[in-house]
Amino acid sequence: MEDVVIGIDLGGTYTKFGIVRRSGEVLASGQIATDRWDRVEDFLEHLSEALHALMRGNVELMQVAGIGIGAPNGNYLKGTIEHAANLRWKGIVPFADLFRPHFDCPVYLTNDANAAAIGEMVFGAARGMRDFIVVTLGTGLGSGMVTSGRLLYGHDGFAGELGHTCAIPDGRQCGCGRKGCLETYVSASGICRTFFELMVQHPRPSLLSQESFDSLTSRKVAEAALQGDLVAMEVFERAGSVLGARLADAVAYTSPEAIFLCGGVARAGELLFAPVRRSFEEHLLQVFREKIRILPSGLPEGQVGILGAAALVPDSGSPADFS
Amino acid sequence: MEDVVIGIDLGGTYTKFGIVRRSGEVLASGQIATDRWDRVEDFLEHLSEALHALMRGNVELMQVAGIGIGAPNGNYLKGTIEHAANLRWKGIVPFADLFRPHFDCPVYLTNDANAAAIGEMVFGAARGMRDFIVVTLGTGLGSGMVTSGRLLYGHDGFAGELGHTCAIPDGRQCGCGRKGCLETYVSASGICRTFFELMVQHPRPSLLSQESFDSLTSRKVAEAALQGDLVAMEVFERAGSVLGARLADAVAYTSPEAIFLCGGVARAGELLFAPVRRSFEEHLLQVFREKIRILPSGLPEGQVGILGAAALVPDSGSPADFS
Repeated sequence: MEDVVIGIDLGGTYTKFGIVRRSGEVLASGQIATDRWDRVEDFLEHLSEALHALMRGNVELMQVAGIGIGAPNGNYLKGTIEHAANLRWKGIVPFADLFRPHFDCPVYLTNDANAAAIGEMVFGAARGMRDFIVVTLGTGLGSGMVTSGRLLYGHDGFAGELGHTCAIPDGRQCGCGRKGCLETYVSASGICRTFFELMVQHPRPSLLSQESFDSLTSRKVAEAALQGDLVAMEVFERAGSVLGARLADAVAYTSPEAIFLCGGVARAGELLFAPVRRSFEEHLLQVFREKIRILPSGLPEGQVGILGAAALVPDSGSPADFS
Repeated sequence: MEDVVIGIDLGGTYTKFGIVRRSGEVLASGQIATDRWDRVEDFLEHLSEALHALMRGNVELMQVAGIGIGAPNGNYLKGTIEHAANLRWKGIVPFADLFRPHFDCPVYLTNDANAAAIGEMVFGAARGMRDFIVVTLGTGLGSGMVTSGRLLYGHDGFAGELGHTCAIPDGRQCGCGRKGCLETYVSASGICRTFFELMVQHPRPSLLSQESFDSLTSRKVAEAALQGDLVAMEVFERAGSVLGARLADAVAYTSPEAIFLCGGVARAGELLFAPVRRSFEEHLLQVFREKIRILPSGLPEGQVGILGAAALVPDSGSPADFS
């Protein structure tokens, strides 16, 4: 029988899951709503049913070697989801422990950015690399850091919170309660805030001038920029400039050989990558210049979360392979 | 025969060395001038003679298991000293390779801050810890980071350059060519610069008002502060405030259980530690608050460099124990 693994990408709105070959091929996938369930137990019941249904159709000749879960604020060391702002289940949820009774195989859980990093290492563009950083640019800014071939978890399991390092002292209010965090400038919401900041400083005609705080999205800003909208283009210049400087600091910490930018905002491509690279080189310590690549994800769009979660399941033996 | 190791602490002015028991006891030690030798080969010849002389008197019944060297800009992966600003030997010096012919045992080299971190782990206050950071506050600011019980070297061997992360965007000119690096604010020279900055902003009577840029030292500032000099006290408040904020960022990267402050400036004790701790807690991400200790070195003053270098020599087998 062929070994397969299940990858679960738990998001605030939807949860995506897939049956994944060890080669990284997604054999089958599905999704259910996350935000409809007030109790995590009810959600798990529903998720379990959906997974068993998917398996019945697909894994008669296969054996599930394990289940990997990528979740916001997931703690790998404890298998918990802790104080996740975008989930309805508050406090510390012992997610892996609650999930284990539903399946007869090992269950691994980590945060979504760490899962993205492991996915990149096992199935993506970081194959063969031992020191790299993955930055996920979605609603927030997450990061996973791999050093000497291992994901950096730290004492508490919360290492790699690049989104909550300080970009601008006493800068924008962050959801974490502090000010000036990187994710208030570089993330989908940060991009939108910068658009309005630029309009405040210098009101100009823009394709986005009809947008409200509620209606504007980073995707709309990217589309406007691609159409030559000067304000929208400047938004990406600013975001890239701030991110590049912070990534230069990240290099001083961990000395990686590459940094991957993933997630929705990274789909803006060169609009973001070009100013990031320029600012990055400008701010790097001499010894690191022109050596470290800033790259897009090597995973197929739409499968990053599932593949990252699936990659959590070690090929043989212990999860210590990655910790 | 008892196994002993030799630890060499290479500094810009002096090089200290010692014969060290596996227990951490320094059996004998000595020092020679570093800055008298234009050619590294001549220095090594002299150092080797001094070491052999020290050994002759002390190790008849002992076997030297290895030699560890802590050096500014030392690269553990290559055994080189690269572009060290405070040494006369310019460019990339293959120090370990040049040293090996002088002794019939393994030679390990790393930078001084990494050596301090390993020394703390093997002989000092970090025994039993697997995730911690050591910050050395001397002429510059160095750092060594241990994650999962291993020193973080990164792809190039240059990880842990906390002194060259950005403290104040577009701030003070740093020797590295960039602006606003942490070590321009928090280091012996940073302390002195802050004294003059405070006097510029608000000239006041001070015990240090007779000091020039050349004559002022961080030790004099500490002594004045201990005598109640208000300007000198404010200097340490400022330094502690900047360092605490940067250490909070460092925690977001590596999630340590403790941070050690070592080196000359750290001898100011609570003058520095109190404002560091206050600023640190204030800037920490919620999940890390009141969990991470800021501690002084647990190594005997004056032996930190020798013990750190000695700790580089693995107790049995490969140096991979620490990498």
